[in-house]
Amino acid sequence: MDRVERVRLRIDLAYDGGDFHGWASQPGLRTVQGDLEAALATVLRVTDAATVCAGRTDTGVHARGQVVHVDVEPEPEDLVGLTRRLNGVLAPDVRVRRVARAADGFDARFSPLWRRYAYRLCDGTPDPLTRGHVLAWPRPLDVDAMSDASRPLLGLHDFAAFCKQREGATTVRTLLDLAWTRETDVVTGLVRADAFCHHMVRSLVGCLVAVGEGRRPVEWPGEVLRAEVRDPAVTVVPPHGLTLEEVGYPPDDELAARATEARARRDAG
Amino acid sequence: MDRVERVRLRIDLAYDGGDFHGWASQPGLRTVQGDLEAALATVLRVTDAATVCAGRTDTGVHARGQVVHVDVEPEPEDLVGLTRRLNGVLAPDVRVRRVARAADGFDARFSPLWRRYAYRLCDGTPDPLTRGHVLAWPRPLDVDAMSDASRPLLGLHDFAAFCKQREGATTVRTLLDLAWTRETDVVTGLVRADAFCHHMVRSLVGCLVAVGEGRRPVEWPGEVLRAEVRDPAVTVVPPHGLTLEEVGYPPDDELAARATEARARRDAG
Repeated sequence: MDRVERVRLRIDLAYDGGDFHGWASQPGLRTVQGDLEAALATVLRVTDAATVCAGRTDTGVHARGQVVHVDVEPEPEDLVGLTRRLNGVLAPDVRVRRVARAADGFDARFSPLWRRYAYRLCDGTPDPLTRGHVLAWPRPLDVDAMSDASRPLLGLHDFAAFCKQREGATTVRTLLDLAWTRETDVVTGLVRADAFCHHMVRSLVGCLVAVGEGRRPVEWPGEVLRAEVRDPAVTVVPPHGLTLEEVGYPPDDELAARATEARARRDAG
Repeated sequence: MDRVERVRLRIDLAYDGGDFHGWASQPGLRTVQGDLEAALATVLRVTDAATVCAGRTDTGVHARGQVVHVDVEPEPEDLVGLTRRLNGVLAPDVRVRRVARAADGFDARFSPLWRRYAYRLCDGTPDPLTRGHVLAWPRPLDVDAMSDASRPLLGLHDFAAFCKQREGATTVRTLLDLAWTRETDVVTGLVRADAFCHHMVRSLVGCLVAVGEGRRPVEWPGEVLRAEVRDPAVTVVPPHGLTLEEVGYPPDDELAARATEARARRDAG
């Protein structure tokens, strides 16, 4: 019997999360993973194509820079043609940006150095053309106050106060960037971390908009962080303002080591 | 009997045209005018509120800077509150940006000096988040060639070659700007004219993308213009890439004169 070698493909993906029940496959519901795996099965003529992603986005959350891996056999000959055929099968709210053979040791979930998300709010008249990915906010936001309040959150902390707790999983993360900018009436928060716990970005944003609209003092987010327990006063903002923009991976020769390290850290409760 | 004076309101409006059968009211179909007039009737408690707009957008065409007038009585006291109440009644794909008392002589349709539209195409992987207002174009576009081809179209011409002819209506217009820019894989055409005939922007764009993808020489659009008859080789690009961005009005003391002049010109067959 011939032994055909499996190869790992890296798929870069963008989607409008509005009509999806999130990334992860769920029976009877439309999910990005479900649509992508069905498209891969059709185009590659296989019965199963199990994908792994960098950021398991929730219902309604969008992505411009999602990264996925899938192991296939035999190796597809024409990856540009494969990209085109996948886009021909997928609905227009998911687009494959690129399919490439993954470097040795690449793991979409465990190799990343960081994930970058954007959260967008409009505190003026919402633009109907961007209403699917920009949250309408009914009160004016003070971006300087939000920036000041964000500073103490940067660095290595236990983010338990901003996370939906999961049994046996660490909530220690390194927050690399948390920056607020305004362009006319659209306020954007860029949030970058090694990894995120569940609901972490949307809780951070919920906490900071309370400062931005003057309901809470600038010191409040830092105090919430230091308490290290879920604070019911922090609201989780709606998913549709959130977009996974980019995932950063190390150079190819560090991919495997990074994955081993991240796997170990994630398991440490 | 008391005689209550009617006042004219100016309404600035934005909408996602995707779910509308265009601006103009049509029985049994959802239109922007239909939705807006119903909202005005509800909020102002009147039985009819006849609106007039600056640009009668077709099915699927969007607007960020549509301008409308409506005559009402009595004069509403709180125009900020009226804006908020209209937005409370309207669906999220139409937003009233502002309601103001119109200056004397203001006519949304006949007072404008110019209308500015944008047509957006993506010749790379389409972004799912903007797919509603950016047309996916499957072949690379040469923006420099499109700019060169646009130059001879500027100025006062008979644009019959680019218009759906209407009995007794002039097709002479002044094209003030026709400029192409690229930002990564999104190509935007900004088109400004005193007024537009039916299908004019979408025909101009259809003609110019034929140059942009190398199917036609740079001289072709100028030749089509000079022929002054509808050219079946010019395709009308789809509506959803088109957005009415802005309408320019003269200073208040010239509004009435401008309207008189525009009305006379429009009637000249």
